[in-house]
Amino acid sequence: MKNMVNYPTKKKLNPNQTIRPTQTKKGMSLEDDLNQSNTYYREMDLAIVHKKPTPITVVSVDYPVRSKARITEAYYRIASTTDYNGIYKGKMLDFEAKETHTKTSFSLNNIHAHQIDHMISIRKHGGIAFLIIRFVTLDETYLLFIEDLVEFVKMNTRQSLPYAWIVEKAYRIPYKLGCPIPYLAVLDSVYFKGVTP
Amino acid sequence: MKNMVNYPTKKKLNPNQTIRPTQTKKGMSLEDDLNQSNTYYREMDLAIVHKKPTPITVVSVDYPVRSKARITEAYYRIASTTDYNGIYKGKMLDFEAKETHTKTSFSLNNIHAHQIDHMISIRKHGGIAFLIIRFVTLDETYLLFIEDLVEFVKMNTRQSLPYAWIVEKAYRIPYKLGCPIPYLAVLDSVYFKGVTP
Repeated sequence: MKNMVNYPTKKKLNPNQTIRPTQTKKGMSLEDDLNQSNTYYREMDLAIVHKKPTPITVVSVDYPVRSKARITEAYYRIASTTDYNGIYKGKMLDFEAKETHTKTSFSLNNIHAHQIDHMISIRKHGGIAFLIIRFVTLDETYLLFIEDLVEFVKMNTRQSLPYAWIVEKAYRIPYKLGCPIPYLAVLDSVYFKGVTP
Repeated sequence: MKNMVNYPTKKKLNPNQTIRPTQTKKGMSLEDDLNQSNTYYREMDLAIVHKKPTPITVVSVDYPVRSKARITEAYYRIASTTDYNGIYKGKMLDFEAKETHTKTSFSLNNIHAHQIDHMISIRKHGGIAFLIIRFVTLDETYLLFIEDLVEFVKMNTRQSLPYAWIVEKAYRIPYKLGCPIPYLAVLDSVYFKGVTP
C-alpha cells in the first residue's frame, strides 16, 4: 500500500516529517496525485497527459566521464506555459495545478499572468484549459475552467478567488483509489456528454 | 540582420566556427529556426506551439541568497515525450525535430522508441504527430507524418530512412523569411483543406 501511494515518483518520506492523515490515505501531494492519475489514464489508454519538465537554465556542465554530463551550475526559470498538457477524445488539454493552505480563498498570485494568457489562447484555439486547485487543509480538490476564471477577473478587482465562489463555479473532483484526481470525469460531464473515446 | 537571424535565442556564434552560407542566410540551427517559426505563429495568433523544457533531474540546490536557488548538481535525463507540442485549428500537434549531417539517409537511432510510441498514441487520440527532419548538408527540411513512419517500420527491417524514401513520402518545407520553417502550410494542405482558423 505504501508503495502504491508513492507511485510513480517514489518520493521518499522524510522520517522526521509529520504525516497528516490525508497524506497516508490519499497520496503525497497534488503533483504526486496528478502523476498517478495521468499514469492511470495513459495505461488505460483513455488520455495522454504528461507533466512538462521544470524549466532550468544551464550555465555550466562538467564531463567527469565522457558519457555522463554533470550540470554544476543552473537556475530555475519561470515557466512560459502551464505544467500539464495532453489529449483526450481528440481535444487538447492544458492545465495548471496549485495547492493552497488557506481555507477561505485561493490567491491569484499562485498563477502567473502569462500562464492565464496561455490558457486563454489554448481555449480560443479549440483546446480545453483549466486550473486544478487543492485546498490542502480542507482536503478538497476542484477543477476550474479558464472561462470561469476569466469571468471572475473581468467582474472583480480582488486578487483572490473566495472559497464560496470556487464551490459554486468550479467542479469538485472526488478522490478515487488508483486514480486520485479523476478530472476526466468532470470533462465528460461538461464537454463530452454522450461522446465515447 | 544578424540579430534577426539569431532571434529569439540569441545563441552566440563561436568565433572559431566556420560559418556555412546557409547559416548566415537561413538561421542558426533547426531548433532556432523552429523557435522563430513558433514565435511567429503565436504572434500572428495562428497556432500555439512551444518547445518543452529539457528534462533535468536536480540533485543539489544551494541558496546563496534567499530569493535565488542555485542548482549545483543535476543531470540530463531522457525525454519521455517529444520536444514540441501545441494546438492548431482545434487539433493537438505533437512533434520531434532532428537534424542529420548524412546526405543519404536518416537514422532512426535519432528518435527513441518511446517517442515514436508517444506520437502514435497522440495520433490515435485525434492529434497530429510528425517528425521534422533536416538534412543539414543538403539544406533541406522535411515533415514526415507518424503514419508514414509507422508504415516504413512495418515494411522494413533497416534502422534508417533512405533519403529517396523521405523525398517521396515526406513533405519538403520551403524556407520563408520571418518564419523559417512554415510547417503549418503542410498541415493545411494535408489535414485542413478548406478549413479556416
